[in-house]
Amino acid sequence: MTLRYALSPAVTRTSAPCIPQAKAWGATYAAGPQAAGPLLDLSQGVPGEPPHDTVLSALSKVAGKPAAAQYGPILGEPSMRAALATELRYQYNLSDGDLKAEDVGITTGCNMAFLILLMCLCPPNESSILLPLPSYFNHAMSLSLQSVTPAYLPCDPTQNFGPSLEAAREILSSPTTTQKPRAIVLVTPNNPTGSTYSPEVLAEWLSLAREHAIPLVLDETYRDFASTGAPHDLFQDPQWRDSLITLGSFSKGYRIPGHRLGSITAHPDVLKQVATVADCMQICPPRAPQLALAPLLPSLREDMVRYAGALRKRLVDFDAAVGSVPGWRVLSSGGFYAYVEFPEAYTSDSGKKAVAAALGKEVSRVGSRDVGHALATRCGVLTLPGCFFMPELDDRIWESVRGGDAMHEDRWIRFAVANVSDDTIAGVADRLRALNSVMGM
Amino acid sequence: MTLRYALSPAVTRTSAPCIPQAKAWGATYAAGPQAAGPLLDLSQGVPGEPPHDTVLSALSKVAGKPAAAQYGPILGEPSMRAALATELRYQYNLSDGDLKAEDVGITTGCNMAFLILLMCLCPPNESSILLPLPSYFNHAMSLSLQSVTPAYLPCDPTQNFGPSLEAAREILSSPTTTQKPRAIVLVTPNNPTGSTYSPEVLAEWLSLAREHAIPLVLDETYRDFASTGAPHDLFQDPQWRDSLITLGSFSKGYRIPGHRLGSITAHPDVLKQVATVADCMQICPPRAPQLALAPLLPSLREDMVRYAGALRKRLVDFDAAVGSVPGWRVLSSGGFYAYVEFPEAYTSDSGKKAVAAALGKEVSRVGSRDVGHALATRCGVLTLPGCFFMPELDDRIWESVRGGDAMHEDRWIRFAVANVSDDTIAGVADRLRALNSVMGM
Repeated sequence: MTLRYALSPAVTRTSAPCIPQAKAWGATYAAGPQAAGPLLDLSQGVPGEPPHDTVLSALSKVAGKPAAAQYGPILGEPSMRAALATELRYQYNLSDGDLKAEDVGITTGCNMAFLILLMCLCPPNESSILLPLPSYFNHAMSLSLQSVTPAYLPCDPTQNFGPSLEAAREILSSPTTTQKPRAIVLVTPNNPTGSTYSPEVLAEWLSLAREHAIPLVLDETYRDFASTGAPHDLFQDPQWRDSLITLGSFSKGYRIPGHRLGSITAHPDVLKQVATVADCMQICPPRAPQLALAPLLPSLREDMVRYAGALRKRLVDFDAAVGSVPGWRVLSSGGFYAYVEFPEAYTSDSGKKAVAAALGKEVSRVGSRDVGHALATRCGVLTLPGCFFMPELDDRIWESVRGGDAMHEDRWIRFAVANVSDDTIAGVADRLRALNSVMGM
Repeated sequence: MTLRYALSPAVTRTSAPCIPQAKAWGATYAAGPQAAGPLLDLSQGVPGEPPHDTVLSALSKVAGKPAAAQYGPILGEPSMRAALATELRYQYNLSDGDLKAEDVGITTGCNMAFLILLMCLCPPNESSILLPLPSYFNHAMSLSLQSVTPAYLPCDPTQNFGPSLEAAREILSSPTTTQKPRAIVLVTPNNPTGSTYSPEVLAEWLSLAREHAIPLVLDETYRDFASTGAPHDLFQDPQWRDSLITLGSFSKGYRIPGHRLGSITAHPDVLKQVATVADCMQICPPRAPQLALAPLLPSLREDMVRYAGALRKRLVDFDAAVGSVPGWRVLSSGGFYAYVEFPEAYTSDSGKKAVAAALGKEVSRVGSRDVGHALATRCGVLTLPGCFFMPELDDRIWESVRGGDAMHEDRWIRFAVANVSDDTIAGVADRLRALNSVMGM
């Protein structure tokens, strides 16, 4: 049946969600005769461990209460806002006045936090936002949906994918910019690269943002997994509210993505506008998980440190395991992710033929999509190919963002290492070896 | 501290959420010496009864499971989509093929469903949407946020607030329209008026929409409370998917607003685009309430019918109670709401003085905001004044939408009758009498 009405080009031009695309590759593995072990899903970034027992029992207890079934305040329960402010003060070594409950708003997940913020900052069709490339695909999709132009910053893979301050300075100082830059968005620890920016580097970014009267937006979804110690000192600046906004997530540290809780930390005047958008988008965040978690947060610190330590150890093991496979190497890692380069030999003529044979289709140039697909279909490892994080993979974009030729390759694959157990890591290396065989290496 | 960055005019020009404004009036009553009984909150539309026991125990059971803490599919659990499709088929007397699981997507509440749809249909700065006035404030706010122009349809209060088909025809046929109409949005049973449109009237609206190649969007948040029988026959049309979209909510019928579940029923091709936006906004709807409710829906039919019957009886009682108070009358009612007119005498010179005395401030013209404020502050009844549903209360708008002088008054107040118990109804009438006294009547 034909649709008799038009859809907005802002939506139809936006990339479809990519996780389901990758998951579909997994289905072809399970269905195939070549299955040599269970599918290993390292695609969507999810905590592989269940939530802490006390979290599960509190969720159960609160969800059964009639009060939790009622609407709550637009920006979250006062108890949750206060509890999160306490955790942030603890994590960033702050005093009471440095960061208060009224500086924190609760959203239905961190993607929502980003989209709300985009709507608060960027008038459509006339704004741009600076963000690193590779870039979290939902950020790029949200920009496209809201008709905001991305101004991509190159990230040098030989320098742990740190985004170029020089490039940002140039964009912000360029008199030719027609789409006014409205914010700098950084994700640290990064998705997809895992790269974690140092406090000194982050201070430079805040200075630059302030100089140009735009906010620095830090998506700190994975902050609980940064190395020990405060991830940065930006909140120590008594004037942080004039230029800094941070986003957070309960999905990772507390391992409850299905309960959908995120946060925005910003000037209370900005949170007032956030509330206007949030009222139209969420009315209130889901109430039961807020009421359940708020009193527990301090008691979960120890478990979070343990989990973060286990993840860091797993990334080290993963690095060693991948490094043992000819041609493969981890370029950077942190938080939930390792960003991995596949063998250059895959892009040779014989590699092209092998990929074509593995996928049963013509391949004009071997890129991360084909290798991700082949890895799933033939070897049962689900990942996200690097091209998912390069929203406009054409020569023009590559040209504008690469430092020399450093990014002019499509040989990266994101492994969500948090998803699986330590035991699985060795298994992944075996599967990569199997793919090398398939590729005739 | 001054903010050093700019906010989008699309947000700063949008009205602030109005429920908190009304709730703030309630605080002044509780604090005052005149309190003569508990505050009666008939402002936000909320079910006054707790969820069914089986719902509470399922919510508790599922929320404690590790699986419910994981991400789910973007448009909801397959079990929930199938269960909701079954309930819709039951409610609208449909056969299996008429409405399937793939025609239904789950969102984090019905406000989100509307906002997603707006993003799917309307490019910013060049679209308009036809919607009735009075209008649900979050719809008007969402339009403002997305830079979509409302084309308001007059609703004659002497004709149960039915929106004017004639006005819609004129707007759709007018060659002077610069903002292209992209949809007709109707809410039935209506928020705020409670007006429920007949199947025949709705069929006319669908025809009109189809004729102009735009969708009819029916927000059926309150459909479970329409009179017995199917609310309309539109799904009987085998071609409904080409032009019809409906929105639903679990907040009302199942009485779980705090768990945030809504739905969109539309052509699967449209749901694909809905998924693109939803991926950026919710990733997935909260998982535990979906998994808990899906298997229960058929077993809750009886309870829903009982609750709907109780509400309809309460609206009849409310009508009688309000009608017994001099000068007050119910203009229309249905679903959760009664739309009430306050005495004309309040707008006289002596009324103006009395309101000014009651509020302790100058009043140039007595309108619904002042009366709502006085009713809360002096008599402890929280409502939402009609002006909250008249987003641009200026003469130009009034002029364009009123049929004659029928709407050129600001004397309406929405009472969310579902919020309170039957016993409270008589109490409300007493408070209205008390306000009449305050006003010198």
